[in-house]
Amino acid sequence: MTQATKINFASDNAAPVTPEILAALGDANMGSALGYGNDPLTGEVEEKLKSIFECDLMAFPVATGTAANVLGLSIMLPPYGAVYCHQLAHIEQDECGAPEFYSGGGKLALLAGDEGKLSADTLSRALSQAGAGVVHHAQPSAISVTQATECGTLYSPGEIGAISEIAKRHGLGLHMDGARFANAAAALDCTPADMTWRAGVDVLSFGATKNGAMAAEAVVFFDMEKAREFEFRRKRGGHLFSKMRYLSAQLNAYLTNDRWLKTATHANEMASGLAGEIFNIADAELVYPVEANIVFARLPAHVLVRLAASDVLYYPSGPAENREIRLVASWNTTADDIEKLMAVLR
Amino acid sequence: MTQATKINFASDNAAPVTPEILAALGDANMGSALGYGNDPLTGEVEEKLKSIFECDLMAFPVATGTAANVLGLSIMLPPYGAVYCHQLAHIEQDECGAPEFYSGGGKLALLAGDEGKLSADTLSRALSQAGAGVVHHAQPSAISVTQATECGTLYSPGEIGAISEIAKRHGLGLHMDGARFANAAAALDCTPADMTWRAGVDVLSFGATKNGAMAAEAVVFFDMEKAREFEFRRKRGGHLFSKMRYLSAQLNAYLTNDRWLKTATHANEMASGLAGEIFNIADAELVYPVEANIVFARLPAHVLVRLAASDVLYYPSGPAENREIRLVASWNTTADDIEKLMAVLR
Amino acid sequence: MTQATKINFASDNAAPVTPEILAALGDANMGSALGYGNDPLTGEVEEKLKSIFECDLMAFPVATGTAANVLGLSIMLPPYGAVYCHQLAHIEQDECGAPEFYSGGGKLALLAGDEGKLSADTLSRALSQAGAGVVHHAQPSAISVTQATECGTLYSPGEIGAISEIAKRHGLGLHMDGARFANAAAALDCTPADMTWRAGVDVLSFGATKNGAMAAEAVVFFDMEKAREFEFRRKRGGHLFSKMRYLSAQLNAYLTNDRWLKTATHANEMASGLAGEIFNIADAELVYPVEANIVFARLPAHVLVRLAASDVLYYPSGPAENREIRLVASWNTTADDIEKLMAVLR
Amino acid sequence: MTQATKINFASDNAAPVTPEILAALGDANMGSALGYGNDPLTGEVEEKLKSIFECDLMAFPVATGTAANVLGLSIMLPPYGAVYCHQLAHIEQDECGAPEFYSGGGKLALLAGDEGKLSADTLSRALSQAGAGVVHHAQPSAISVTQATECGTLYSPGEIGAISEIAKRHGLGLHMDGARFANAAAALDCTPADMTWRAGVDVLSFGATKNGAMAAEAVVFFDMEKAREFEFRRKRGGHLFSKMRYLSAQLNAYLTNDRWLKTATHANEMASGLAGEIFNIADAELVYPVEANIVFARLPAHVLVRLAASDVLYYPSGPAENREIRLVASWNTTADDIEKLMAVLR
Repeated sequence: MTQATKINFASDNAAPVTPEILAALGDANMGSALGYGNDPLTGEVEEKLKSIFECDLMAFPVATGTAANVLGLSIMLPPYGAVYCHQLAHIEQDECGAPEFYSGGGKLALLAGDEGKLSADTLSRALSQAGAGVVHHAQPSAISVTQATECGTLYSPGEIGAISEIAKRHGLGLHMDGARFANAAAALDCTPADMTWRAGVDVLSFGATKNGAMAAEAVVFFDMEKAREFEFRRKRGGHLFSKMRYLSAQLNAYLTNDRWLKTATHANEMASGLAGEIFNIADAELVYPVEANIVFARLPAHVLVRLAASDVLYYPSGPAENREIRLVASWNTTADDIEKLMAVLR
Repeated sequence: MTQATKINFASDNAAPVTPEILAALGDANMGSALGYGNDPLTGEVEEKLKSIFECDLMAFPVATGTAANVLGLSIMLPPYGAVYCHQLAHIEQDECGAPEFYSGGGKLALLAGDEGKLSADTLSRALSQAGAGVVHHAQPSAISVTQATECGTLYSPGEIGAISEIAKRHGLGLHMDGARFANAAAALDCTPADMTWRAGVDVLSFGATKNGAMAAEAVVFFDMEKAREFEFRRKRGGHLFSKMRYLSAQLNAYLTNDRWLKTATHANEMASGLAGEIFNIADAELVYPVEANIVFARLPAHVLVRLAASDVLYYPSGPAENREIRLVASWNTTADDIEKLMAVLR
Repeated sequence: MTQATKINFASDNAAPVTPEILAALGDANMGSALGYGNDPLTGEVEEKLKSIFECDLMAFPVATGTAANVLGLSIMLPPYGAVYCHQLAHIEQDECGAPEFYSGGGKLALLAGDEGKLSADTLSRALSQAGAGVVHHAQPSAISVTQATECGTLYSPGEIGAISEIAKRHGLGLHMDGARFANAAAALDCTPADMTWRAGVDVLSFGATKNGAMAAEAVVFFDMEKAREFEFRRKRGGHLFSKMRYLSAQLNAYLTNDRWLKTATHANEMASGLAGEIFNIADAELVYPVEANIVFARLPAHVLVRLAASDVLYYPSGPAENREIRLVASWNTTADDIEKLMAVLR
Repeated sequence: MTQATKINFASDNAAPVTPEILAALGDANMGSALGYGNDPLTGEVEEKLKSIFECDLMAFPVATGTAANVLGLSIMLPPYGAVYCHQLAHIEQDECGAPEFYSGGGKLALLAGDEGKLSADTLSRALSQAGAGVVHHAQPSAISVTQATECGTLYSPGEIGAISEIAKRHGLGLHMDGARFANAAAALDCTPADMTWRAGVDVLSFGATKNGAMAAEAVVFFDMEKAREFEFRRKRGGHLFSKMRYLSAQLNAYLTNDRWLKTATHANEMASGLAGEIFNIADAELVYPVEANIVFARLPAHVLVRLAASDVLYYPSGPAENREIRLVASWNTTADDIEKLMAVLR
């Protein structure tokens, strides 16, 4: 596999699986287990999440982040409704219309916001003009925030709380796309509970794939009334695994001994270190504050030429004339990787 | 995991993963690989399938059988269309409306047929009265057959060819749900090509999960023109894996050294042996010919009482008064399992 | 218009509009009126229906019977749900998948039944095996009955009540397709209330088009809680009329002075007279009891040849070898029409 | 009907039906006519449109503007696709998600543009970054323009041609929402052909309701290949009228003797006259050029207070602090209406 010799800053989903999660798949591979979640491991995942989030909850494993997002949203979004989200949100930019599909034709209402974040003010203004109750307009139904954001920035619990207050005032559900929830949890000085249900989040896509799992996410319902029809929606989406134990084994290993926080902390530290190095390059700029495991940088044209010819995997961000790139650190990024990248950039 | 001590005849999806497939996941876990199928293993799967099916084709890994079926069907089924299938078909009975969902509201037109099989005659009669071209009626768009069927029986290449002829005459696509394709291929005295494209199949759900994989199927397009929009549909269904290499690794190992046929052959032999034993029980009857890895048996009431109290996992089939059960042999079913089951039944 | 010289027994929707309803359109055509139902006539329709049905209710005009049916059903049918109906139901046979479309992929579960009617027993048996609560199966969500049925027969209030009891026991909504509700109400010896909410109907498609209107139906909610999201669903279906007053004017005129019952009574009497005549033809048979305005007859082959060459408009029913035809009487059918038809048939 | 005494500038859909169209309904009300478009009038509509547009075409009557738009768009918009349109487009602002519904979950991609118009430049820039061919992104599939626009402005044939060139370069369909097509055709110095197919339009919603019909629009396909599946989509949307002759009668009368252009010319002249008067009010401003039958005006606060207390029906436009209102002239607007309105405004 020649890609293995490249230096990956393209995405945390280009990283491999942690040894502990791989081992857990082997451990789960003993004898028979009833399918579709009627196995002991699936129950354990829910118990571990209850303990981590310090509350009762319902949790459902799925294999992809898009599935987690759109199944969770579909509970809150009637086909004549709209989800309010940032215009850079993954559900808008990178899911090929999956939210519209799973809601039977609902809409995303897009809002601008600095550093990839929705502000309570912008939301409030948009909702006051949204035509709630007027039959011609898609009805405001939910708000979705991404934590950590697509720009690698973070919402504080206070910011989430302010958004949640608006959601409650307008009778909307609050969804959190936590594809990089671990990176946020590792970076913020608060508990997982503080970032979620205590701040008013109803449904969370709790990601693991980008942080060392093979293909595993959990849809977590803090508002358990909303979970009632989830299992039917998961099944009809084709997302109910027959051999569920192997999804659950990944999540179990991930949640054991704070491993999920440890791998995320490492990725965050690598990104932070990288950001410091880039900051010192002449004519280079950081596009957003580096608060999790992603660095957006604006680089001189000649540096971009060099980078494109190198062994480094990365993605440009936005139109070419902006000269911006995205660099993502993963659980397996090494200081040596950064050194090699910087050798190209300097 | 206490279920591991039970004797599994409930389903082949309650079986574990073969050691070779598990090992392949470890082998794939080296360094970084670009996501979404841009890894070397995914290309290899397609090459192996071309060799097995002796033709050019396009193949797309997904994780569940329902996803494979409904994504494949969605290509052939406009929202105002109907798929003709057996009334016992998995797509009708066990997918919670997924085909209707993925086609945007298409219909399944249900037909009866002996031993879980569609007959060319029944199809022909139904299609002649279907109102093709008449605006009030859902338009016949595709036929779906299951191979091996939900009743554990098989279509011969000739039977598939006769159905395909009808499909062609009416301008319909032909889909094969091959969740247990390996069991059929192992049992029939013909090549995979004979059972599929040579007999007129356009799209095949090529199953692996029930035959020893963790969660991996391939949607195989023999009619490659139909594949054009598949990738967009997979993505918007939430079925595009970021770390695709782990799906592909399973399929690669599965397709190597005829392993897929060996595990299926074993399961078939176990079912066949079991059927022979049940045939000899007084007052027991086999409901369908046992041609693959599934046994349907009608048992005396007092035997069912004993079975229900035993360590054997199984499912009743149909209403209780029929006294029918389904017993499925898996790649890991042993002669000892059968002996223990028979000790309860005798 | 040469068709005007033909004798119409093809359908009650090939008949023209009653003079009173046409005049009402002219009366409504004075000055401006706010659109989308914010006009006085629309409120009047609801008041008249309350009086006719002797209860509080909510009523929404739409222009087609398919729209009425599928919008009403969409309220009761989640995308993972199933409506139980007769296999000859209009929603199955003649709406090109509209119920599946409007519910976002729900299913119709088809049942057999004598004379086009569901029986409580058949329903009960089907529902007991439907897998309610089991994630693999579409969830039973509603029952739909057609009154008068597609076979021209009638449910008695007692029969509807027995079906409603089953609906309630299983937590399902009860929908009535009343495209020919007037014909049923005119024929049955009971009040509109007895046939609907008193017998447990939740939502009624109250038809007018087939009985002398131009294009007007009302979706009537006896269970008003279910009406909450109706208006959004009507709008997104494209069925909210801007100049609603012209829909409402039709319904108003229709409901005034028992006109709706008078035109239906006439059509029923014509059908009944026709049935008596056909009964006396040698080798002719009535296929179903003639209880409303439709006659199904099995005729000798040589008579069918004569009929096909005549000026009579009609439809064959089912495959040609059955020799069955459908004859529908309308509000404007005359004794002379029947005489001319009989002259061909005798 | 007390609203009849008010002075309507709220909407052209609050106006009544022209006497000629009303009379045509009576003329059509003779004898029986086969349903669903198999009547002579429906064919005549298509012939008249061919003559007006000087080309072969296919035309399908429907009753509402939303139905016309979303059925036409659904042909060009796969469920994983996106329609590029102005952020003020009716399909985005006023159809409660109908385009998403009818396309099975497609998206609208919103663009800004002066005076309610898309510019070729903006489109070109957006499409170059849309990710065509990339599986994560909704695929650009069509462009929709409104003529006359929601701001009461007009595209010149040249502007449409420039947009069409971009559509062709990117392989997209071009849809025109012509709810007020007559107002545009009456105002522009070119033929209907110049504004549509000669400039590259594939599908047109040809409106009549806002310009004096009761409830009638035609979906016109210049690209007839695209019409193949239209009738099935119309039926499953519940938009196929059984008594179609009454839709067609409206359109026939509308298209006879240039009536459609005469009523539109009148409305345009009334709006133009009104705009001249408003221009002369101190502190009043016209928000957009008045090119068709709509006037957007920014008025002093004390004038708005007076207006709100008057007998004039109108709608505010945008947030209250903008002090903007929309005034629409209709086929039946009189000089006296304008005088009365101006008496309030002055």
